[in-house]
Amino acid sequence: MKIVVDAFGGDNAPREIVSGAVNALSEREGFKVVLTGKSDEINALLKEYSFDSARVEVVEAPDVITNDMAPVEAVRKMKNSSLVKGFYVLNSDPDARGYVSAGSTGAVLTAATLLVKRKPGVLRAALAPVLPTVKGGRVIMVDCGANSECKPEMLYNFAVLGSDMAKRSLGIRNPRIGLLSNGTEDKKGTDLTRSAFASIKADEKLNFVGNMEAREILSGDYDVVVSDGFSGNIALKACEGTALAFMTLLKEGIVNGGLRAKVGYFMLKPVLKSLKTTMDYNAYGGAVMLGLEKVVVKAHGSSKAKSVSAAILQALSLAEGEDREA
Amino acid sequence: MKIVVDAFGGDNAPREIVSGAVNALSEREGFKVVLTGKSDEINALLKEYSFDSARVEVVEAPDVITNDMAPVEAVRKMKNSSLVKGFYVLNSDPDARGYVSAGSTGAVLTAATLLVKRKPGVLRAALAPVLPTVKGGRVIMVDCGANSECKPEMLYNFAVLGSDMAKRSLGIRNPRIGLLSNGTEDKKGTDLTRSAFASIKADEKLNFVGNMEAREILSGDYDVVVSDGFSGNIALKACEGTALAFMTLLKEGIVNGGLRAKVGYFMLKPVLKSLKTTMDYNAYGGAVMLGLEKVVVKAHGSSKAKSVSAAILQALSLAEGEDREA
Repeated sequence: MKIVVDAFGGDNAPREIVSGAVNALSEREGFKVVLTGKSDEINALLKEYSFDSARVEVVEAPDVITNDMAPVEAVRKMKNSSLVKGFYVLNSDPDARGYVSAGSTGAVLTAATLLVKRKPGVLRAALAPVLPTVKGGRVIMVDCGANSECKPEMLYNFAVLGSDMAKRSLGIRNPRIGLLSNGTEDKKGTDLTRSAFASIKADEKLNFVGNMEAREILSGDYDVVVSDGFSGNIALKACEGTALAFMTLLKEGIVNGGLRAKVGYFMLKPVLKSLKTTMDYNAYGGAVMLGLEKVVVKAHGSSKAKSVSAAILQALSLAEGEDREA
Repeated sequence: MKIVVDAFGGDNAPREIVSGAVNALSEREGFKVVLTGKSDEINALLKEYSFDSARVEVVEAPDVITNDMAPVEAVRKMKNSSLVKGFYVLNSDPDARGYVSAGSTGAVLTAATLLVKRKPGVLRAALAPVLPTVKGGRVIMVDCGANSECKPEMLYNFAVLGSDMAKRSLGIRNPRIGLLSNGTEDKKGTDLTRSAFASIKADEKLNFVGNMEAREILSGDYDVVVSDGFSGNIALKACEGTALAFMTLLKEGIVNGGLRAKVGYFMLKPVLKSLKTTMDYNAYGGAVMLGLEKVVVKAHGSSKAKSVSAAILQALSLAEGEDREA
């Protein structure tokens, strides 16, 4: 099995991407990585590491899609970009089962939607990040930005896809599904959510808990949070922003808190460090594009080697999971 | 001027409500409070404090609306509840200019919408909480739950109301307005937000920054965040939930971190305490119902005396602000 990696996607490309790819190879046997991008630069970086060269392919792609480019236009025109070229490899090579990029979210979403076949019965692909919870588990949010305007049947689709992913990649037997709303009562929400509520509830194969508030996303009481891509994106980024705000204020407090605060920080460092690790959802890999024939993982733009490696192994295990089912 | 206070609304009613009311009187001269609820209980609690009795009125209201009641039905049927009775006092007494309740959000929204006149030109009242930012300032979110389904002109309305409140209660001369979306580019969002974007931008009296992501809500780069009530509610509660998750994990880490962690906690206590205070938006009062002829403030259900007092003083200053304009 091969995992295709966009070596020039993300803020820390290509160095951290290549390093993450080599790291992933050292952590798991039985798969290869295909790195797309400027081959001379990639090969130069690869020379810094020792690894089984038979497990790495490099595919030349001279162009780079940046975040400031209009996604659709970029994907259509820049066929020789590391991001788009990767999708061509994914489609043309039967051994290529997964794709990982830390590049422009818009471009990855667009390319995945335009270039990768959807699974039968899937209306639209959805972006699903995995977040940590206070109980030590994880929660999958779907959709977090692939579809800003949704129909009820799409939300039902997301529930099925999310539940399926929770089983495969989190190993949860009967995933608890919550429908993101502005209250927990059945009648809460919009016409969209009320209609989606009915169809999700109607499917007895799903473990549907009901409407949930955004306050509960990290509570650990849900395994899958279903929403339209607009609301999901807002919920995800509000969580990110608050976590960031917390860390910023804590840092400032310590810096301005004199000796006592600095000593306190030193003593509390192990706790704060593990707190930071728990809240850092990049450590759990990237956001998965659900509903496609092949596995597509969008790693965070700021990903370092550790997150890239996690995203590659995540793509690998998801692809393997599909084999077990087939 | 009088501020009407629902003495039996909220998790800590009536004790914390009464205590907060007396506290507000001690902090500011020149206004009275009208407490609605079971008068015998209220009077018994009032006996515990010393204050100018001429500044307190008690209005008998034997019934209590609880959170589990259907708002519309409760408001229609329970005319003798402390929550609804307060609105009758607000309407009938010309000196009554503000209303504060920590009771059921749904019931307060419903009662305010049904019983209080809207200002001319206002399409729908909107719920606007005030959040702290990492830069030490505050940000107003409008709407956070009064209107789950919105039309573009309503969002434009919210921008005007929010900007107006930022001037009056935060004293900001030219409030920076952001439209909550799934990206910062002008074309991002839904049909609703794109259309609202155009009309907000068209009003040159507004300082419209453009589309913003939920990640930026607490950044201090915006004074007013405009959204439909569904998305706003999700953004607000996602921020709340993440802050809560942070505190929970920090606490656990300290409890399980042995002596070193406990010493560190002791040394870092002042920093963590001020951090908690900064993040605690209840300290800044409650969520204001914007667009009504009289000031209505919904205090957090878990409000203690401090927050109740802050909400009462917030209602007072908003009412005074309208006098200055008139």
